[in-house]
Amino acid sequence: MPDRGGFLLAGRGPFGYSCTSRSHSTPHRMEAVEMRKHVYYFGGGRADGNARMKDLLGGKGANLAEMANLRIPVPAGFTITTEVCTYYYSHRGAYPRGLDGQVGKALARVERAMGARFGDPERPLLLSVRSGARASMPGMMDTVLNLGLNDRTVRGLAEATGNERFAYDCYRRFVQMFGDVVLGLRPERKDDVDPFERIIEERKRARGFRLDTELTGDDLRELVAAFKEAIREKTGRRFPEDPREQLWASIGAVFGSWNNPRAIAYRQINRIPDHWGTAVNVQAMVFGNMGDDCATGVAFTRDAATGEKRFYGEYLINAQGEDVVAGTRTPRPIEKLKEEMTAAYAELERTYRRIERHYRDMQDIEFTIQKGKLWMLQTRAGKRTGFAAIRIAVDMVGERLISREEALLRIDPLQLNQFLRPVFDAGEKRRALEGGRLLARGLNAGPGAAAGRVVFNAEDAVAWAARGERVILVRIETSPEDIRGMTAAEGILTARGGMTSHAALVARQMGKVCVVGCGALEIDYRARLMRAGGTTVREGDAVSIDGATGEVILGEIRTFPSEVLRVLLHRTMDAKESSDYRSYAKIMAWADRFRRLRIRTNADQPDQVRNAIAFGAEGIGLCRTEHMFFGGERIAAMREMILAEDSEGRRRALARLLPMQKEDFKAIFRELAGRPATIRTLDPPLHEFLPHGEREVGDLARQMGVEEERIRAKIASLREANPMLGFRGCRLGIAYPEITEMQARAILEAACEVAAEGIRVRPEIMIPLVGTLAEFEAQKEAVDRAAAEVFAAQGRRVRYATGTMIELPRAAITAGAIARAAAFFSFGTNDLTQTTYGMSRDDAGPFLVRYLEEKIIPEDPFQSVDREGVGYLMRIGVERGRATRPELKVGICGEHGGDPASVKFCHEIGLDYVSCSPFRVPIARLAAAQAAIGEGRRRARRR
Amino acid sequence: MPDRGGFLLAGRGPFGYSCTSRSHSTPHRMEAVEMRKHVYYFGGGRADGNARMKDLLGGKGANLAEMANLRIPVPAGFTITTEVCTYYYSHRGAYPRGLDGQVGKALARVERAMGARFGDPERPLLLSVRSGARASMPGMMDTVLNLGLNDRTVRGLAEATGNERFAYDCYRRFVQMFGDVVLGLRPERKDDVDPFERIIEERKRARGFRLDTELTGDDLRELVAAFKEAIREKTGRRFPEDPREQLWASIGAVFGSWNNPRAIAYRQINRIPDHWGTAVNVQAMVFGNMGDDCATGVAFTRDAATGEKRFYGEYLINAQGEDVVAGTRTPRPIEKLKEEMTAAYAELERTYRRIERHYRDMQDIEFTIQKGKLWMLQTRAGKRTGFAAIRIAVDMVGERLISREEALLRIDPLQLNQFLRPVFDAGEKRRALEGGRLLARGLNAGPGAAAGRVVFNAEDAVAWAARGERVILVRIETSPEDIRGMTAAEGILTARGGMTSHAALVARQMGKVCVVGCGALEIDYRARLMRAGGTTVREGDAVSIDGATGEVILGEIRTFPSEVLRVLLHRTMDAKESSDYRSYAKIMAWADRFRRLRIRTNADQPDQVRNAIAFGAEGIGLCRTEHMFFGGERIAAMREMILAEDSEGRRRALARLLPMQKEDFKAIFRELAGRPATIRTLDPPLHEFLPHGEREVGDLARQMGVEEERIRAKIASLREANPMLGFRGCRLGIAYPEITEMQARAILEAACEVAAEGIRVRPEIMIPLVGTLAEFEAQKEAVDRAAAEVFAAQGRRVRYATGTMIELPRAAITAGAIARAAAFFSFGTNDLTQTTYGMSRDDAGPFLVRYLEEKIIPEDPFQSVDREGVGYLMRIGVERGRATRPELKVGICGEHGGDPASVKFCHEIGLDYVSCSPFRVPIARLAAAQAAIGEGRRRARRR
Repeated sequence: MPDRGGFLLAGRGPFGYSCTSRSHSTPHRMEAVEMRKHVYYFGGGRADGNARMKDLLGGKGANLAEMANLRIPVPAGFTITTEVCTYYYSHRGAYPRGLDGQVGKALARVERAMGARFGDPERPLLLSVRSGARASMPGMMDTVLNLGLNDRTVRGLAEATGNERFAYDCYRRFVQMFGDVVLGLRPERKDDVDPFERIIEERKRARGFRLDTELTGDDLRELVAAFKEAIREKTGRRFPEDPREQLWASIGAVFGSWNNPRAIAYRQINRIPDHWGTAVNVQAMVFGNMGDDCATGVAFTRDAATGEKRFYGEYLINAQGEDVVAGTRTPRPIEKLKEEMTAAYAELERTYRRIERHYRDMQDIEFTIQKGKLWMLQTRAGKRTGFAAIRIAVDMVGERLISREEALLRIDPLQLNQFLRPVFDAGEKRRALEGGRLLARGLNAGPGAAAGRVVFNAEDAVAWAARGERVILVRIETSPEDIRGMTAAEGILTARGGMTSHAALVARQMGKVCVVGCGALEIDYRARLMRAGGTTVREGDAVSIDGATGEVILGEIRTFPSEVLRVLLHRTMDAKESSDYRSYAKIMAWADRFRRLRIRTNADQPDQVRNAIAFGAEGIGLCRTEHMFFGGERIAAMREMILAEDSEGRRRALARLLPMQKEDFKAIFRELAGRPATIRTLDPPLHEFLPHGEREVGDLARQMGVEEERIRAKIASLREANPMLGFRGCRLGIAYPEITEMQARAILEAACEVAAEGIRVRPEIMIPLVGTLAEFEAQKEAVDRAAAEVFAAQGRRVRYATGTMIELPRAAITAGAIARAAAFFSFGTNDLTQTTYGMSRDDAGPFLVRYLEEKIIPEDPFQSVDREGVGYLMRIGVERGRATRPELKVGICGEHGGDPASVKFCHEIGLDYVSCSPFRVPIARLAAAQAAIGEGRRRARRR
Repeated sequence: MPDRGGFLLAGRGPFGYSCTSRSHSTPHRMEAVEMRKHVYYFGGGRADGNARMKDLLGGKGANLAEMANLRIPVPAGFTITTEVCTYYYSHRGAYPRGLDGQVGKALARVERAMGARFGDPERPLLLSVRSGARASMPGMMDTVLNLGLNDRTVRGLAEATGNERFAYDCYRRFVQMFGDVVLGLRPERKDDVDPFERIIEERKRARGFRLDTELTGDDLRELVAAFKEAIREKTGRRFPEDPREQLWASIGAVFGSWNNPRAIAYRQINRIPDHWGTAVNVQAMVFGNMGDDCATGVAFTRDAATGEKRFYGEYLINAQGEDVVAGTRTPRPIEKLKEEMTAAYAELERTYRRIERHYRDMQDIEFTIQKGKLWMLQTRAGKRTGFAAIRIAVDMVGERLISREEALLRIDPLQLNQFLRPVFDAGEKRRALEGGRLLARGLNAGPGAAAGRVVFNAEDAVAWAARGERVILVRIETSPEDIRGMTAAEGILTARGGMTSHAALVARQMGKVCVVGCGALEIDYRARLMRAGGTTVREGDAVSIDGATGEVILGEIRTFPSEVLRVLLHRTMDAKESSDYRSYAKIMAWADRFRRLRIRTNADQPDQVRNAIAFGAEGIGLCRTEHMFFGGERIAAMREMILAEDSEGRRRALARLLPMQKEDFKAIFRELAGRPATIRTLDPPLHEFLPHGEREVGDLARQMGVEEERIRAKIASLREANPMLGFRGCRLGIAYPEITEMQARAILEAACEVAAEGIRVRPEIMIPLVGTLAEFEAQKEAVDRAAAEVFAAQGRRVRYATGTMIELPRAAITAGAIARAAAFFSFGTNDLTQTTYGMSRDDAGPFLVRYLEEKIIPEDPFQSVDREGVGYLMRIGVERGRATRPELKVGICGEHGGDPASVKFCHEIGLDYVSCSPFRVPIARLAAAQAAIGEGRRRARRR
């Protein structure tokens, strides 16, 4: 009879916080579960399940069934479903009715298939009991091996194998594992020695042995007895001699281990839902450790690092699977097996090829050879690097194993990053880490590798870079004043801020390596140094930062640009020389064939535009004009404008800015060569353009010839309780229409002049932070006024469109009205997320981390569009806008435009394009293709 | 033929900014207008129109028609419709086809009715041409009188009346008016003398006269000639002798005056839409200035100040209407007319009574007696004070003139304020203003009158009040730390902040007199003084503030509590003694009979609750617990909690707060005596509880025995870029569940203990700033945990509900999910408006004023619910919430709960209750009744 598994359940349910809310529907579903098939047999060329049943059987169980169906030799066994796990947790550790009967029947089939009987003293069947969830959670849950041994069956095993030491070694391993996993005899504190290992060590000392292998069969028998004694003494529980009791206890322990702290943490990190549960696989044991005609090994059907098509793996003669992983003996490369066991190797080769062909994907396999016979223990899709993923996908298309669609769907778009980012010299980095040079770890905000000398402010970054130094700009946090310094630096490192902080956003747009939120750094601007742990790093010292891992390392590690970049941007490599580039180019070409969404980029400098186009951007989705207002003369004119007393003074200052802005736009229009450019009018609050330090205020006063007091008063008058919700966006342009007019003039004069050069221009002027139709109309009027003047003066017209950001809930709700006047919409999902959630991304740090940990929100809404809330507003924004103006062009220009899940959502709600930072363009192209393919497949299925 | 009206149109269209967007639909509508009836005749006991046609005929025209239909003697005339005005502006000053024909026919009817002919040299018909919009815009548009006179007809008039001087005086007035209004001869600069008056003065000087009346008929004839000459010379235009030309030019001028700067400004201030347009009334002249058997006057059918039922007005013998208003002669009280013209007076009495009975409302009438015959020139609903409005409504119900529903609909709910606020001694205030003691003018944030001595900080306010001083607390702006000072003060005056600033909100909740945003004040805390204009006011000097007008007056003016307050709150007056109270009580009783919405109050002190109940509150809709954390020992414990290093430290500090909170709640539950209380858990960011000044930090450090540095570090760590969107609301309670638990314990322990006294308790615990179901569930779990503990410890259970604020767009959108766990919703429309609009109410000042002026938004969304944006979210919040949980209780607790238009909206979308500050409760009761009555009538009409 199944008992309650022997373990108390943790206070916390398997569903975490969502437990309460779901429980309404649980009882009903559970009634149905009672009557279901819970146990799926596999073995002897047949199986109840198959590979498509991963949700029910877990990955391991489904693939074992699949292999059995393929008549590939797998030790017979059965899988207890994930539904039983769910039932177990919602019924305080009880099992559904009928489970024991189903287990009994399956076990009988295993006995028949393997020609042995469970608990039989003559030919005992031994079992393994393993977890197996939908998603791989390696090493997180418990396993019991060699189950079925007791004082009687061990003798049968010894006789059947003719190897007493082997039999007792199995028994010793089983008692040890069962004692730990099921009966809970384990170290009390983390640093304590394992109680079983202590007994073994004592025995070896008593016998004067150094190695475990020196222990004889008798030693092992006595160890078993000592183990059992220790268990009874320490836990008060008796080791069960009855194999069935062993089996049910082990099944319970494996189900129980779904909720051990390690497994919970792993699921949190990997976003695996708590309610999935694990299956339990009970399978006949086969032995790679019965002698020298036995072996065990793991292999990949292709190279997981590079994607190269070669069989790649390791094995050990006379060993159990665990030994390969444990690293106590050094395994041999798989090629050697061909020499050592020619026939078995040939069988293995045939088998792995068949499996790969069948799964049409690179597989990660485990096998055991028992007395010359090959048994497959596991197969699953192999984990791989980005490089490998792409190469394998491309190769398999070439091998006609998969279609192009499948190839595209197989690649995680973020893996494309590996093609674009500079890379560290792997050996140097390893040595640095081994040498204890890791200073701290922050958030991996801008992937890639960068090394250089530390500077603590933007001016120094610019100055040092000008004299040829490679620098890392280190700031507590960055602000728009730091832009030029960020441009000059190899990489950016901040102590504060999250994945959507200013530093992170700008770095991603620039394609800079960036680590943010590195709280362990204590930065002292005045002393020009930072401390991390015990180490002090001074200005000019070298550091290396890994934007893919968040590591900050002391000293300079060599870096290289990636091959794709060398081909695409640096032109220091020919396309033909780079296999990386060829794979990349193929994937991109296929992606472009399937996607419906257009891809634009967020860029405001000509070089950014050039890069983005090289990456496949089809236009600019967001050109922020405010970045153009920083830098020497411009910031002076901008400040003069802000400090002006009246419209006249503002116009004078704006007149100085106009020619500079115009040149910026001309350069951009030339780079675009006919592609559209959405240019946003001034958005940030004016105080961002004024200095804040005492000294800077004094400097500015002298420079402008005004009293310090006036500047301070202006700064004070612009101070706001909540600048995010303050005097910014179109509110500026409505208060000072001359600003919008100047910007429109600069854009349209540039457009006319570039058009006169014979280059097509497609300016789209975008008004930010609109909440009402009247706001938009007032700004459109200013734009149209400027346009009429420019066209009259230039004697030339260009087509232009005026549209708006949809970045406030009210704009989405009233999109139907706004579309009466607006030619296009662009969702500003950064602000839309902030206002919809009432959550400032700059301030969310302290609680957002906790929210994610406690699953109060499933996903950082600043990284991936919150479909339910923000997504609802986007959806009605599109619907209502298009109801008024069916041809309305709609895009997205928030950071989400480069997030694959968000791109998919944008496809689903019918946007025309997504816009993202240049280095995200390839990612967006692929994500858009996946969205289109996915939609096509769903449609096909519905038909 | 009608010409183009003779005037250039202003650049700005009649529809202001909305012109462009509306123009789509204009052409069609206008085509139809071409074929319509444009001219409505009235006179001789018949009329084409009636009083219900105000939109088309304007108020004046509709009422003239109505009187004519009633066979009340009105000089015959006709009205040209407002549609013609709209047409005129959308067709660059042209008139619709057929207008001249219709005017001609109507004019012929006027001639027949009056027995005179337009332009006839024997019996000339003279006309007045007046504006008349839907809403009264007194004196804003132009008028032409005595039209039809020329060198020939003037002689006919002289003969017909036997009074040459009269005839030439009419002619002189006409030429002067026409020259000014139609031909544009007027002072060039504001201070210049009127050119016509200059000519008159010259003549008088030449003749040695002092008074106009000394001028003879000949003088006047020569003045006319001189006027015409001056017109030709200065404007280059000829005075038209042709009466028809005079008529069409005057009609054009009156239409044109709809868009003069004064009229535009008036419409902006009074929120009258630009597209309404004005009608033009052309009417036969009658003369009150033909001799001593003539008179003219204005009167109210009841006292407009008190509402008393007495005929009340003024008249002048031998004068034109303008003279009564102009103030050159002192008019006599209407009673005197009875003696002077007994018959005419008797006729007037019969007539006004008939008119009032017919309109069933107090009327403001104008009349002229020409040679003993009474003519009515105008009637309209009379403007009145709040007192009068209510008294008249109540009296008219008593007189069976109107129903109770009508009485309720007639009162502007805000007029009830006059019953509740302290009042200045009117004479003293007038003398103070005349004496130049007005210091400044701010925003009228908390109506009423207050006087006292100035103090500049909350502690002084408390201390001075404790020793019996009446003080006015003057602050640059207020913060929660000032609460106790605000309570102690008679009134609050701030230099910064708008109608929804902290000071304004708290003052309204407290019912305090409050003037905010008084920018003219320069406050110097250090020197303990403020300057306004040239005056310096030091600490201890007396000032008086009028919260109904925003005036700040030097010196102390006597105040009295209103009669209603003396009866309701102070119990210093008996209900029977006060007619104000009797009217108030009747209105409130009727309102309660009709309304469906329940009315609750926002209150967190027992005395506030007591007041609110006296005003009719049926429970608490929002008890903010944070106000309870200020004050001596509490703030110390609160700060200790914030500065605690861990959960243990926090729990210790919270344990000290618990008994204090509990006592607060017990006092509140006792006051409520069984009414429900919605109590919100901690909402504001924690930094609000910490001191910010250098000295205060030092004090706190000493007091708590910690290092200053630690306090400063904590303050720094709590600093946020956008605190409104930061670590507050349920985010605090999720990070520190012990806070929510303590608050729940305090509430439920208090509830159990008060229940033990035999008093019913209905606690509703409300979680703020919820955006997701999971947030709410986490907090509900904390509440339920505390409840289980409290009930176990007390051996007693009370029913309680846990619900949430809906104050984020995401909460409204996901209301369906949140309602799975929440027992009630309360719309926090302050925050919901801020997030929906992306507009911080603290920072909106600089642009919101401009937005309102330029009609970019029609209404301050922080005062009245933005139906289109915020209202949409409220609507789906209710719908989705109730779809999940049909019995869901839904209310509103933002400031909007006391705004009549918002109360109406809340009724429409089906809320269960509104909650507002105590002094707004009567207003909300009346507004709720009006909403219900309005809905009933709409339904009845639809059937």
